[in-house]
Amino acid sequence: MLVNAVTELFKIKYPIVQGGMVWVSGYKLAAAVSNAGGLGLIGSGSMYPDRLREHIQKCKKATDKPFGVNVPMLYPNIEEVMQIIVEEGVQIVFTSAGNPKLWTPFLKKHGITVVHVVSSVKFALKAQEAGVDAVVAEGFEAGGHNGREETTTLTLIPMVKEKIKIPLLAAGGIATGRGMLAALCLGADGVQIGSRFAASIESSAHIDFKKRVVLTEEGDTMLTLKEIAPVRMIKNEMYEEIVALRQANGSVQDLKNLLGKRRLKKGMFEGDLVEGILEIGQIAGLIHAIETSEEIITAIMDEYTKIKGELLQEKFTF
Amino acid sequence: MLVNAVTELFKIKYPIVQGGMVWVSGYKLAAAVSNAGGLGLIGSGSMYPDRLREHIQKCKKATDKPFGVNVPMLYPNIEEVMQIIVEEGVQIVFTSAGNPKLWTPFLKKHGITVVHVVSSVKFALKAQEAGVDAVVAEGFEAGGHNGREETTTLTLIPMVKEKIKIPLLAAGGIATGRGMLAALCLGADGVQIGSRFAASIESSAHIDFKKRVVLTEEGDTMLTLKEIAPVRMIKNEMYEEIVALRQANGSVQDLKNLLGKRRLKKGMFEGDLVEGILEIGQIAGLIHAIETSEEIITAIMDEYTKIKGELLQEKFTF
Repeated sequence: MLVNAVTELFKIKYPIVQGGMVWVSGYKLAAAVSNAGGLGLIGSGSMYPDRLREHIQKCKKATDKPFGVNVPMLYPNIEEVMQIIVEEGVQIVFTSAGNPKLWTPFLKKHGITVVHVVSSVKFALKAQEAGVDAVVAEGFEAGGHNGREETTTLTLIPMVKEKIKIPLLAAGGIATGRGMLAALCLGADGVQIGSRFAASIESSAHIDFKKRVVLTEEGDTMLTLKEIAPVRMIKNEMYEEIVALRQANGSVQDLKNLLGKRRLKKGMFEGDLVEGILEIGQIAGLIHAIETSEEIITAIMDEYTKIKGELLQEKFTF
Repeated sequence: MLVNAVTELFKIKYPIVQGGMVWVSGYKLAAAVSNAGGLGLIGSGSMYPDRLREHIQKCKKATDKPFGVNVPMLYPNIEEVMQIIVEEGVQIVFTSAGNPKLWTPFLKKHGITVVHVVSSVKFALKAQEAGVDAVVAEGFEAGGHNGREETTTLTLIPMVKEKIKIPLLAAGGIATGRGMLAALCLGADGVQIGSRFAASIESSAHIDFKKRVVLTEEGDTMLTLKEIAPVRMIKNEMYEEIVALRQANGSVQDLKNLLGKRRLKKGMFEGDLVEGILEIGQIAGLIHAIETSEEIITAIMDEYTKIKGELLQEKFTF
């Protein structure tokens, strides 16, 4: 079954990684995705170190399949986080938001498979140089990890593929079998999917957030907060306040004051759809149900196989 | 050979439309693309009515294959333009930048095939209601027709496909066989390609502009001028002036004064790479040569067929 560069690297059945997301991807989601044949990731970005250790331990009990941890390297307590990862025997780490040279040698020394998330060709090359085992290239349409170059997944994947030799995962705008097949046509070896798993049964997000994602339509999200760190969010009242402040020529400090802290937790974990930040990708417009991770993976693989089969039809032959 | 909704509609060999672009797509480019089996479009947006008539007449002499005219409906002289199109017996019109209800009934009454360019699901539905024969859905990564919702091609195509019944062409970020195959996987019936033809031998663009496109890398373009009408352009000195004005809190009028007139002509047609606007899509980073339109179409179809064949290999079967 290990026929593809990504399934081989992670020893998984399907080349589908569940993105490690703040307030969304605890051990329940990661274990459910791994049990369904994908690669689940615990998102450490919204966890204190002790909480992360607890989630890793619970994940090991909840699945005997490979799983990983996503680590945004610019977060505080990074040394403690990396120590816990080694102590708990985590086999796969996805790093993001930082220089891949910082922690790749340490992780590799401990026999850990390292993947770095990038949003540009330049950083894909830097990650390869740093010795990572694979890169995730994430486009403008994604909910997170959005680059300042605003390069979309459709253009980013073939441009990265042209330059790097290591396995490549496509992320941003992918939630279905059609999207996965498109990504593989573009040169990716696998996909990382966030938004659809954020709205899954096993996601730690608040039920009201999940319901709001299901109601989201094309055009309902916008990439904003580029002055601080770009975030794609649903255009709710909180978003309108950001727009209004910008129109009034507010400073970056004014913006930071408006946001205060914990807006993401408020929106995604506590379900405050008005005052919280509702981070999600553009592809939310194609997500129509709250499903289990197993249902999601089955639906993706069924559609992937169906559409791939249809390409043999005469109407695709020119 | 007429096996697909798009090839049938236009009576062409390959479901590849060359986008109608200002300062780029005169009769030479349109005829070359049509002669190579695609659908060439004359871009009327940068032509006075008499000049358009001349290009249509020359195009009819240069090819016996179907070709069309792209008409941005918000441009002046629109009534005269439409009259010329009918008088000259143009069979296919792509409308953009305006309400499809305005001219579709007139064009259909004269037996003309009408396609409307949109950047959102909402306008795709409006175009279908207005009675057009097909829609082009164009994503954020495109050089032109960028919507304020900033929806990317990868997410826009399946979301539009879900809602409309008429044939769908994908545009924005497509320049290769891989990109075309990805678009068809997402549900498109064909593709509209701009940037790669803008850099072709038969393009009317200045040779220095074409060379600059070939040198463009990932991250070198940015969607800007959102306050007036969004344009994606290469980040040259002109672009930096726009950024500087914005950082100095310049007004929309200041911006209009800075731009003045004819900046697009200056950049694309006259080859002023410093003071001109260099409009191009993100996929320019994947364009590495100035080729004939026939070479481009052959390369696209060869790659399309090759990658489609590779999908049958075991490494794509999970």
